[in-house]
Amino acid sequence: MTDTAELLRTERDARGVYTLTMNDPKRFNALGSEMLASLQAALQQVQADPDARMVVLAGGGRAFCAGHNLKDMSAHPDLAWYRELFTQCSRVMLAINQLDVPVLARVQGIAAAAGCQLVAQCDLAVASTEARFATSGIHYGLFCSTPSVPLVRNVPAKRAMEMLLTGDFIDAQTALEEGLVNRVAAPDQLDAEVAALVDAVVEKPRAAVAMGKKLVYQQRELGLQAAYQLAGQTMAANMMDADAQEGALAFAEKRVPSWKPH
Amino acid sequence: MTDTAELLRTERDARGVYTLTMNDPKRFNALGSEMLASLQAALQQVQADPDARMVVLAGGGRAFCAGHNLKDMSAHPDLAWYRELFTQCSRVMLAINQLDVPVLARVQGIAAAAGCQLVAQCDLAVASTEARFATSGIHYGLFCSTPSVPLVRNVPAKRAMEMLLTGDFIDAQTALEEGLVNRVAAPDQLDAEVAALVDAVVEKPRAAVAMGKKLVYQQRELGLQAAYQLAGQTMAANMMDADAQEGALAFAEKRVPSWKPH
Amino acid sequence: MTDTAELLRTERDARGVYTLTMNDPKRFNALGSEMLASLQAALQQVQADPDARMVVLAGGGRAFCAGHNLKDMSAHPDLAWYRELFTQCSRVMLAINQLDVPVLARVQGIAAAAGCQLVAQCDLAVASTEARFATSGIHYGLFCSTPSVPLVRNVPAKRAMEMLLTGDFIDAQTALEEGLVNRVAAPDQLDAEVAALVDAVVEKPRAAVAMGKKLVYQQRELGLQAAYQLAGQTMAANMMDADAQEGALAFAEKRVPSWKPH
Repeated sequence: MTDTAELLRTERDARGVYTLTMNDPKRFNALGSEMLASLQAALQQVQADPDARMVVLAGGGRAFCAGHNLKDMSAHPDLAWYRELFTQCSRVMLAINQLDVPVLARVQGIAAAAGCQLVAQCDLAVASTEARFATSGIHYGLFCSTPSVPLVRNVPAKRAMEMLLTGDFIDAQTALEEGLVNRVAAPDQLDAEVAALVDAVVEKPRAAVAMGKKLVYQQRELGLQAAYQLAGQTMAANMMDADAQEGALAFAEKRVPSWKPH
Repeated sequence: MTDTAELLRTERDARGVYTLTMNDPKRFNALGSEMLASLQAALQQVQADPDARMVVLAGGGRAFCAGHNLKDMSAHPDLAWYRELFTQCSRVMLAINQLDVPVLARVQGIAAAAGCQLVAQCDLAVASTEARFATSGIHYGLFCSTPSVPLVRNVPAKRAMEMLLTGDFIDAQTALEEGLVNRVAAPDQLDAEVAALVDAVVEKPRAAVAMGKKLVYQQRELGLQAAYQLAGQTMAANMMDADAQEGALAFAEKRVPSWKPH
Repeated sequence: MTDTAELLRTERDARGVYTLTMNDPKRFNALGSEMLASLQAALQQVQADPDARMVVLAGGGRAFCAGHNLKDMSAHPDLAWYRELFTQCSRVMLAINQLDVPVLARVQGIAAAAGCQLVAQCDLAVASTEARFATSGIHYGLFCSTPSVPLVRNVPAKRAMEMLLTGDFIDAQTALEEGLVNRVAAPDQLDAEVAALVDAVVEKPRAAVAMGKKLVYQQRELGLQAAYQLAGQTMAANMMDADAQEGALAFAEKRVPSWKPH
């Protein structure tokens, strides 16, 4: 029995950037029930931290995340057990989506099934040239239904369907072209590329980022007119924030904005 | 009067892979009322076959499909007649979407108007380098409204709008880059490329593929939370299937799954 | 005080093609309240012109449009004032979307924040190789919420999120690859490329284009079945138009259609 405290390594830097590292390399960071519970707890911790600014989600060892633990699943041929597992997993995915701060996937190895889903569900993703992506469940008779949810919201329809039906891996360059990741870097440049994107985000005011992230996903589910109405209200509220007032003033005075500390 | 039995050639291999070949080369496989009726009947036949595994939709002769028969349409200047024609056509398109087994378009020549729509509506598509695609109705004063339905669900918004407003052809490489097809192959490699994709799909269990295909299109129309709920239920149900149980066991025992025959 | 008649130059050619040129180069064609009012009035004029065929939206000077006027916004720290501004701006964006004739953005320089939104909201866009695009508000503490509305409907999700969170510029080639613009041309070829696309559209019948444009955006917000129903009705109505009857007859008689003058 692994202690859940070890399953997921949580680091926080002085700026409020959390790095969550899945740490079960022997099982390729499989998303068993304990790993999911650890992720859920860590995301709740981030959400409760008023000075949190961003999350980097990483995998320790050779794989980013191989998805669910099929061995465990084989040992529990029980509908209620499966339902609870997928409910728990979807809760983590929704927590990523609903988190105030952006979540970036740092993908150094394979991201398969629910591991590929994690990448798709994150707001941003940076991959090593050696990373590979698959919705591979269908190879074992289990169509990647929950991974298909963020997948079809990230990549073109026929590409998603090909991944889901064949279960085959695509390489990092293909993932980049299809929109599954934002950037690809050589393995020894991966952390630098992640840091560049993190730096670009954390220099922005926290409140504006939180309002904006929430709005983007909300408005995307609405018709055009309702989307504009909600976005306009959000933007007006954003402008009333002290940071935006300082930003606009700095723009007018042709100087760099000086945000209040968080 | 052409016998409808000849308009569409239906072949089925021992694995349950159907090849439906539109066979009206003189009219570039135009989607007249009889061709549509033949397609509808063939799709119903596939749906009724419990051992069907996949459909390859092909065109005989130089064109894949040139769309509706404008000559026929010119001869019937009648709103009710047009409504019936487009209803019949949309019924075929929805049947492709609702079919339990995946449908792959094998595109060897031009795919225009409703012919381009067929490609867009299929789950997968493989094109010859010589294939070309257009929503060309607007050249004759008829905006490709029904083709726009699957088109905007496959390719980026401004690309779709350009195709719809100009009516101009794009080549196979462009169709690949825009997401309208999955793969492009030299004409003499087209069948091999189609076969590779078919093989990759038919080796998967039928029930998982059927559940998954249905789920993907259903969840795409839902908000994120509802999508996850439906996907989680689908995946739990999928796991209870004997094939998925065998798949997970095979994974645990590090062997190739042995599916039950269909 | 600038006269609003000068803020936006309106030209109309004999074919009914309007060129609206934002003309406040000193402020990089900022979308202040007057500019928005001028755009709204011009779009209403186009909509009221039964012989209008298309709109080209252009920027005078070095920038296409730098977005909202942050200096003005800084001077009005008032929620009601901001709400009115964003409501006015969204009204212009919706007017572009609801206009009977297609709107093409001609982008010769930077398109930032609401300027980038204008490009995304237009039906078509052609950019100079020197054009650059950003949703830059976040640099000043103001997340580009309203620009995110058309952005996520044009480019892949993670690309949109990266632009929104970093505020950084992308170049024209990247905008092309991501679907934000249709074509990129050298600066001295920009007008020729715009003209080619305009010519391709205005040779089509006006009624079919108007019906089609409206349908595309309507059906995109519906489920697949409802989308097909609406599209089928639209297409049947389109066929009853004299131009479509002439088009189909011309097709049958193998001659070029001769549309009635508008």
